[in-house]
Amino acid sequence: MKKHNFSAGPSILPRVAIENAAKAILDFDGIGLSLLEISHRSADFEAVNNEAEALFRELLQVPDNYKILFLGGGASTQFFQVPYNLLEKKAGYVNTGVWANKAIKEARLFGETDVVASSEDKNFNYIPKNYTIPTDLDYLHITTNNTIYGTEYKTDIDSPVTLVADMSSDILSRPVDVSKYGLIYGGAQKNIGPAGVTFVIVREDILGKVSRKLPSMVDYRNHIANQSMFNTPPVFAIYVVRETLRWLKSIGGVPAIQKLNEEKAALLYEEIDRNPLFEGTAVKEDRSLMNICFVMTEKYADLAPQFLEFAKSKGMVGIKGHRLVGGFRASTYNALPKESVQALVDCMREFEKMHVK
Amino acid sequence: MKKHNFSAGPSILPRVAIENAAKAILDFDGIGLSLLEISHRSADFEAVNNEAEALFRELLQVPDNYKILFLGGGASTQFFQVPYNLLEKKAGYVNTGVWANKAIKEARLFGETDVVASSEDKNFNYIPKNYTIPTDLDYLHITTNNTIYGTEYKTDIDSPVTLVADMSSDILSRPVDVSKYGLIYGGAQKNIGPAGVTFVIVREDILGKVSRKLPSMVDYRNHIANQSMFNTPPVFAIYVVRETLRWLKSIGGVPAIQKLNEEKAALLYEEIDRNPLFEGTAVKEDRSLMNICFVMTEKYADLAPQFLEFAKSKGMVGIKGHRLVGGFRASTYNALPKESVQALVDCMREFEKMHVK
Repeated sequence: MKKHNFSAGPSILPRVAIENAAKAILDFDGIGLSLLEISHRSADFEAVNNEAEALFRELLQVPDNYKILFLGGGASTQFFQVPYNLLEKKAGYVNTGVWANKAIKEARLFGETDVVASSEDKNFNYIPKNYTIPTDLDYLHITTNNTIYGTEYKTDIDSPVTLVADMSSDILSRPVDVSKYGLIYGGAQKNIGPAGVTFVIVREDILGKVSRKLPSMVDYRNHIANQSMFNTPPVFAIYVVRETLRWLKSIGGVPAIQKLNEEKAALLYEEIDRNPLFEGTAVKEDRSLMNICFVMTEKYADLAPQFLEFAKSKGMVGIKGHRLVGGFRASTYNALPKESVQALVDCMREFEKMHVK
Repeated sequence: MKKHNFSAGPSILPRVAIENAAKAILDFDGIGLSLLEISHRSADFEAVNNEAEALFRELLQVPDNYKILFLGGGASTQFFQVPYNLLEKKAGYVNTGVWANKAIKEARLFGETDVVASSEDKNFNYIPKNYTIPTDLDYLHITTNNTIYGTEYKTDIDSPVTLVADMSSDILSRPVDVSKYGLIYGGAQKNIGPAGVTFVIVREDILGKVSRKLPSMVDYRNHIANQSMFNTPPVFAIYVVRETLRWLKSIGGVPAIQKLNEEKAALLYEEIDRNPLFEGTAVKEDRSLMNICFVMTEKYADLAPQFLEFAKSKGMVGIKGHRLVGGFRASTYNALPKESVQALVDCMREFEKMHVK
């Protein structure tokens, strides 16, 4: 049976990227060696690394005064690496849920950390707005998409201080005005590639201003000076990033994927709003296009386990909601085809016919 | 033409691990999803992670009071993570070359760091011996195999203080008495798997003794408490580790690979010592079984570029020496077959016939 992969991450990747990765593992570009066995300093791999960076720059329209890095350690490493590099006196954070909270916790180790806005009062079901950003902050940190609560910033905010964003789960899903940010980071394992590589887009002039001494691996400037090869990079993961970005370019880039993502999300949210069995958990204006969270309506709450089983029997994978929200979560990242969303909608309709008299 | 892969790292892996990785990327264990697309919290991947750890424990005979972690970030991250977790007052380091030096540099950020022994006086061509280890150290750090200089500790040293070892390039190549160490770490990309995952073997009782506050990702205790799943681990790389360890077990484990490694090294060192064109760079008693460094003898020094070309034409890959030593380096990690060493020896003999009258 065909599987429809709604996993929150690691998550679905373009089939062509997967097939090319399998080929490269057996024999990389016909050189008689596996991609897993070549030196990261070889011309063969340098070409991969350079192309991945160039494609990322082209697709997201990253200005020339920003550097793009591919690092190890995951976004969780960025939670402390950002304040290590940038927090001298005071940082501001917008608290939009679990991941923002983790970032806040690490920042507190390095200096004063103000939560300038929060949606904790309503279990993080919205994106805070209409708050004042203090102008004495070293930076303001936001999490543009919140995988657990299904909320997402729809536009790039204006900030009077350096803006830092965790875009792990919505990078390259929509256009971003990179010039509004000082630093953007994220784990690759949603829209860009497999688990094991982290991207950082940074405007160089914000670096080198803290007084503390930085471990070499923590200092972004070392990675910039060595084009992400300060140490042995995650070679295979970067290869899959290149393949994923090649695919994104081939289908029309960010404008095309944005349109597709909007269509997919509309299809599912319309069904959630129409079907008497289900309701969304996030406020409508802040609904994520990447992680669509919904629950059973009160009247049918008991049917939740049955629906999960039913959906599983129809090939749906990874739609169980996070325990902090409950219900269901369909992650509709770039590589998820519209057919999979339609399959889930069909599933919801069929379940409705079985249970709503 | 068949390639003989002597790369220093990332380096040759067992063919069966490569083939199984390619299969798992297309369809992981027949579940209808790619290994790259599954959740790290899935039962399917947890089984992989658990088996990789169990195999590592079994093959290296790691005692029960040690934890085994698979992390991101490379050994270069361990260079600062070790002192961050362990250095309160003073650490000691043995300086055996470039990598040891990098570790020393990071330790100095966290506290007093004494170089208790060094082989810098002879361009690191030996392993220091007969030095006194101060008893007031928080730990002593050694690098058991030095990839650039081709030197290696042949036995586990006795230390009155906690012993920490970077075993990136000789882990699982010979038996190790783990009980003599407090912490062993290394990048996987030589004997264990592909680039992108780092192993840490740590005795829990040495942790939690420093007064500084640790970022969550830096604190080994968080990774221990979450069985290497504190954040999204490098899923694919851990899979290849499991496959590589399965292969090692299948051929007889560490005693069998040690015998093979000794045979391979003997074959090549004997040729280096016999052939008038070549000579080894490391002192004989400290010669590495993993990275065999040699140069052209003075009389034939001009022939070095020609030999490199000749060897390349015969399928040899990665035998150019590091610029700090010059000449040639043949890395003979676990997965390199004896046939490849024989091919290199044949190449050296043929070149001798062409040039020694």
